[in-house]
Amino acid sequence: MRVLITGGAGFIGVRLARELLKTGRLNGQDITELHLADLYAPPVDLSSDARVRVHTGQLLGQTDLLASGFDGVFHLASAVSGECELDFDLGLRSNLDSTRAVLEGLRHSGKVARLVFASSVAVFGPDAANPLPDLVTDNTLASPQTSYGTHKLMSEYLIADYTRKGFIDGRSARLMTVAVRPGKPNGAASSFFSGIIREPLAGVDAICPVSPDVTHPVSSPANTVKGLLTVFEASREAMGGRLALNLPGLNVRVSDMLLALEEVAGPIVRQRVRFERDERVAAIVANWPRATSADRALALGLKPDASFKAIIEQYIQDCQQPTYPADALKGMNTTG
Amino acid sequence: MRVLITGGAGFIGVRLARELLKTGRLNGQDITELHLADLYAPPVDLSSDARVRVHTGQLLGQTDLLASGFDGVFHLASAVSGECELDFDLGLRSNLDSTRAVLEGLRHSGKVARLVFASSVAVFGPDAANPLPDLVTDNTLASPQTSYGTHKLMSEYLIADYTRKGFIDGRSARLMTVAVRPGKPNGAASSFFSGIIREPLAGVDAICPVSPDVTHPVSSPANTVKGLLTVFEASREAMGGRLALNLPGLNVRVSDMLLALEEVAGPIVRQRVRFERDERVAAIVANWPRATSADRALALGLKPDASFKAIIEQYIQDCQQPTYPADALKGMNTTG
Repeated sequence: MRVLITGGAGFIGVRLARELLKTGRLNGQDITELHLADLYAPPVDLSSDARVRVHTGQLLGQTDLLASGFDGVFHLASAVSGECELDFDLGLRSNLDSTRAVLEGLRHSGKVARLVFASSVAVFGPDAANPLPDLVTDNTLASPQTSYGTHKLMSEYLIADYTRKGFIDGRSARLMTVAVRPGKPNGAASSFFSGIIREPLAGVDAICPVSPDVTHPVSSPANTVKGLLTVFEASREAMGGRLALNLPGLNVRVSDMLLALEEVAGPIVRQRVRFERDERVAAIVANWPRATSADRALALGLKPDASFKAIIEQYIQDCQQPTYPADALKGMNTTG
Repeated sequence: MRVLITGGAGFIGVRLARELLKTGRLNGQDITELHLADLYAPPVDLSSDARVRVHTGQLLGQTDLLASGFDGVFHLASAVSGECELDFDLGLRSNLDSTRAVLEGLRHSGKVARLVFASSVAVFGPDAANPLPDLVTDNTLASPQTSYGTHKLMSEYLIADYTRKGFIDGRSARLMTVAVRPGKPNGAASSFFSGIIREPLAGVDAICPVSPDVTHPVSSPANTVKGLLTVFEASREAMGGRLALNLPGLNVRVSDMLLALEEVAGPIVRQRVRFERDERVAAIVANWPRATSADRALALGLKPDASFKAIIEQYIQDCQQPTYPADALKGMNTTG
């Protein structure tokens, strides 16, 4: 089968691609071609695989690629929340227009592709009349308070309509905040959820821009990829009628994240995190769910990560791999 | 103040324009210019008013008009539900792209326009896992089952985001099915709700494509226009945080509509309606709310029509006006 990952050189895209190439199969079929579309080229372990085809450039310009006909698509390409708040046009173009281009291309390809769209917990938000409930469920009324969340939600509904019309077989998985991400901080307002673990482990001081009392649903990279694959492989019946669902999140308090860090890596590492409120980030995060449930995803067999300690341990294990920066765990030596 | 009505030559647009010109004021200010944009020219009583400016053609081509800066906008232009189901591209262009063009034009005009968007009860729908509740409220999870409803809902969220960013001061009023509409049946799947009253009154046989047991929320033209004006004039605070609300509907059963017709116009008129199921229409209508509430609109002082009899009487009174077809009530003579 021909599979496409948009955002295929991004963090989750690369991890998903590696998983697909490792098993070689998706939904009971062999993967003969894996197309990775992104602004940048993917790592060489991917591009050197004989099954992989690399497409670099704006997704909006990939008309021929999109219309070439795929059996499966993971549509992950996206500008992140912080970027979209700063650049409204970028958000419209990267997150709304690009999704439309993907859907239109697939519609006219002559093949009904199964598609998983990476939506986001950011579709939920409070408004003056309706504060967010303590627990945000699959049935909570979406009321996004960022352009990012708005465009994700609009895309969910567009995908549902393309599916209803039989143009694609789509479903939307609302990703929780992925932690721990490797590499540099990005423009996402949620970036610090990884930063306060990643930087101290690398021996670098980190700033937490929100209160230690903030709670938030997070998911490890491995569990997030598992979620995308499971939603892809679910039958339409198993999706239960509606096509958008919450992926499972581990609802965790920032202070408990740091306790787990101390447990895994010691007090010196934990003390590299200091609290310095950033009003812009804090205001965005204040409008995000404090905790989520994911009954429909649980019914598909998915689960949240077992603990935040397990999430940190997964990151440390990942860092042993050659594709991670050599100094990713430099900060741990000081405790050894 | 400069006011724009998109769809200003349509049925509701014309009625709204007449009301605005009659009072000459909106939200406490004098209306100096009333711009009517539509595919077609409005009736001459409007175009001959010194305050009126007429703009004919596709809304997507009206870039200069939209960017010229308005104090108030009623965005009513829309392809109807039946059309959008038959022509997917038309729906995307007329209902989604046009809304974006309106919002972008206003955003770049240098003036923050107050905007009321005519959304629709069609944003609500059932899905396999979640049948519609007996009563659809402001808090019911939207799950549109038509492209029309999908694009209306997407536009609601886009308008909320443009408003959050301060580009416009927008709000969305979900119109109930408007009855009784004058003139010819249109492509809307809801067209028969007017047809089964209008045609018999004109002495013409009418077909009801759904069961007499079907219930549906309807609103008279006058009450619908009142709803648009009230939502326009509501303060942001009075809107209660969320920017989309249901307009009040009179929840009425088809059989009771016909009883009211008989009460007003006699049994001969009522007997001109026969039931002949149209599966395409029935399938669309089956996915629509059977009854709605509108607590947030009621809090603004709005109310549903008093009775369906009152709605028919309003139509009969309207038909006395010179702008209505001379033979609109021809069928009533047979009972006199």
